[in-house]
Amino acid sequence: MLKRDYIFDTIKRIFRLYGYNPIETPAMENLPTLIGKYGEEGDRLLFKILDSGDFLSGISDDELSAREQNRLALKLCSKGLRYDLTVPFARYVVQHRNEITFPFKRYQIQPVWRADRPQKGRYREFFQCDADVIGSDSLLNEYELIRIADDIFARLGIATVIKINNRKVLSGLAGFIGEADRLTDITIAIDKIDKRGLDDVKEELLSKGISGSAVEKLEPVLKLAGNTGRKLDELERILSGQKTGMKGIEELRTLFDYVGGAPLWSDVEFDLTLARGLNYYTGAIIEVKARDVAIGSIGGGGRYDNLTGVFGLEGISGVGISFGADRIYDVLEQLNLFGNVSSSGTQVLILNFGQNETAYALKIFDLLKKSEIRSELYPDPVKLKKQMAYADSNKIPVVVMAGVEEIKNNQVTVKIMSTGEQSSMSSGDFESFVANDLKEKI
Amino acid sequence: MLKRDYIFDTIKRIFRLYGYNPIETPAMENLPTLIGKYGEEGDRLLFKILDSGDFLSGISDDELSAREQNRLALKLCSKGLRYDLTVPFARYVVQHRNEITFPFKRYQIQPVWRADRPQKGRYREFFQCDADVIGSDSLLNEYELIRIADDIFARLGIATVIKINNRKVLSGLAGFIGEADRLTDITIAIDKIDKRGLDDVKEELLSKGISGSAVEKLEPVLKLAGNTGRKLDELERILSGQKTGMKGIEELRTLFDYVGGAPLWSDVEFDLTLARGLNYYTGAIIEVKARDVAIGSIGGGGRYDNLTGVFGLEGISGVGISFGADRIYDVLEQLNLFGNVSSSGTQVLILNFGQNETAYALKIFDLLKKSEIRSELYPDPVKLKKQMAYADSNKIPVVVMAGVEEIKNNQVTVKIMSTGEQSSMSSGDFESFVANDLKEKI
Repeated sequence: MLKRDYIFDTIKRIFRLYGYNPIETPAMENLPTLIGKYGEEGDRLLFKILDSGDFLSGISDDELSAREQNRLALKLCSKGLRYDLTVPFARYVVQHRNEITFPFKRYQIQPVWRADRPQKGRYREFFQCDADVIGSDSLLNEYELIRIADDIFARLGIATVIKINNRKVLSGLAGFIGEADRLTDITIAIDKIDKRGLDDVKEELLSKGISGSAVEKLEPVLKLAGNTGRKLDELERILSGQKTGMKGIEELRTLFDYVGGAPLWSDVEFDLTLARGLNYYTGAIIEVKARDVAIGSIGGGGRYDNLTGVFGLEGISGVGISFGADRIYDVLEQLNLFGNVSSSGTQVLILNFGQNETAYALKIFDLLKKSEIRSELYPDPVKLKKQMAYADSNKIPVVVMAGVEEIKNNQVTVKIMSTGEQSSMSSGDFESFVANDLKEKI
Repeated sequence: MLKRDYIFDTIKRIFRLYGYNPIETPAMENLPTLIGKYGEEGDRLLFKILDSGDFLSGISDDELSAREQNRLALKLCSKGLRYDLTVPFARYVVQHRNEITFPFKRYQIQPVWRADRPQKGRYREFFQCDADVIGSDSLLNEYELIRIADDIFARLGIATVIKINNRKVLSGLAGFIGEADRLTDITIAIDKIDKRGLDDVKEELLSKGISGSAVEKLEPVLKLAGNTGRKLDELERILSGQKTGMKGIEELRTLFDYVGGAPLWSDVEFDLTLARGLNYYTGAIIEVKARDVAIGSIGGGGRYDNLTGVFGLEGISGVGISFGADRIYDVLEQLNLFGNVSSSGTQVLILNFGQNETAYALKIFDLLKKSEIRSELYPDPVKLKKQMAYADSNKIPVVVMAGVEEIKNNQVTVKIMSTGEQSSMSSGDFESFVANDLKEKI
């Protein structure tokens, strides 16, 4: 939890640094807002909320006994739990269009729910961290999102590669090989080239009915090598007859011009095979990968030209990026990058010697609180051994003792748990110990 | 959102300062965990999740057509959304009993859901902020929770009264007036004395069937005046024959002894009429009220001796406190105590003069980011008037301009929005302006 808070806090701080403001939307959306937005699979994975009160009203006996589950579900339930943050955001923008000043920059960090079978790396409830700009088609927005990703991973210390592609270039490519209407199949196939290799991809393309000559034309493009500038030059030559493709290359050039002048922590590179499986991107496609951990993407996004259209607000272009807190967590853990984040636990335990010693212990308690030391007075006067075990099991680094002897001499005994070192001091010395030396021990 | 974050951050910081660790539980609990824990009304207000997949399997046609909604709901739904944080916490403790070191101190800040009709001050989704200690019956825990409440409201600057009562004293009182088995009715009635006055309370007691002589015996007790010490003395005399009542008084004395020695911001007082309507408290009852706003309680809690018993873990005593973030928000707003919290928006807007000026603007952007100034470069090269309107509507205090002229002279123009004051400076001077003077303007 503390570690996860550290990730959220870092992401939030960067989002704010770039002028994004937080919004939150309710966990429940009207079911019609959600249905049909995530494909058939998505509809199946939506959690639906049984209407409260008389949930059978409006359902006839015939309808009940027909047992058509999909239809019945929509009659039994008028709300569902949000499945991602993008659709609720689009709904929010349409609903508040008259109060919003465009361009509108918002971030949102909230859980989403999916009725997936729980398995490693997949949870039924997990957090998404999204930032979007809506109402501006300037490529400076894409650049800003790349900067945001870069800043976040620089702060977290994760070495990253940010891969960039453009949907228009993929369209141009499909046109160039004479299969313009097969863009989806083509992108789905070439998306896998990293994992499965060129031969597998070619096979998949053929099996999907892409012509042999088209696959042949595609092969040299997929083999393009060299740095981003060189790849773009070659591609420009290849796509010179494709209007949309050339527009995509122009956009990539502008974006990489911005990137080239920036003081970046990450490598940013053009990746023609990047498609992110998602069909709603219309321009830039962005993906962030950790360099030193094989875990898939830890962030990604892109430009979508008509997100709010489905809710009746046409012609608003947006671009967004989303970070996966759970995967980032795993990466930080694997690379041992949490540092001393987890040490925001209790710093000092004051032992409890009994009712007669409590007033004295409470003075120590007050002193520690005043100095903002995270501290506890053990509540029960049980055996000291048990109290020490509590300090151990909660990894509390310093234990303070004040029994009859100490109180008589107006002293305090301090024990440093890591070394076992123990020393008694006057309460005056203890005060200056708290003010000065204690911070080094905790 | 930023204001709410400020409340959460303050509460979290104090919880941690007192050695409480965060836990989170999933939004969904198994429905049997929730059903029957909040009374009939609560069962009705639980949000139930329709089982995914074949939700009608296991329901016969006869059962369907019988239309017994309560029974059907339990067959259609095996999960529900959490209704409070206490029951999921109890479930959590029982489930993890073997990994937990007692005393176990946790805090939890998460939303809960209730199918209430939405109305002012009541939401279907709202946050609770709970801290509990479980596995220790020392009164130092109660004292600590009072300190936590006091610290939180001191940081927030809200003048508060913390009221304390003890369920055992109420039991003693019921015994003293000869109506020991009517404790619930009695506490519900006297809880209202603040709002409705003594006469109304007496009437309610009589209408509930409490005898006239019992009400007569109760009256002088309800009229007890003076400070906490004096009230306890009188009460001790009155309850001298009541064993449970005397135990309650002893507990109150110990607690007020601790409180008396503490450097507190709030007033802490004994309030015999405090019952909090809740029947599961067995010892201390705590309520926090804002002194200067009539809004009901902004925090409350108490000792419960058998929270986990219902889940099969008997004999674990706990004590907890819960803060209502929404009400605290309203109080801070009404008392104008948010200060400059809401000003965590963008501090500097760089105007966009067009493609040719972008590289220069991006250098300014980099400089501001390096200095952790929350800043934006307006993404589109639209009319300056529109860009200035964006700064206005987003309350951005400083606008930076670098058009053809500035770039030619290697200058930057800075406009302070509040005064309209505008000045041009060399980029060198701008750098030192950012490092030194800018922070005063934002």
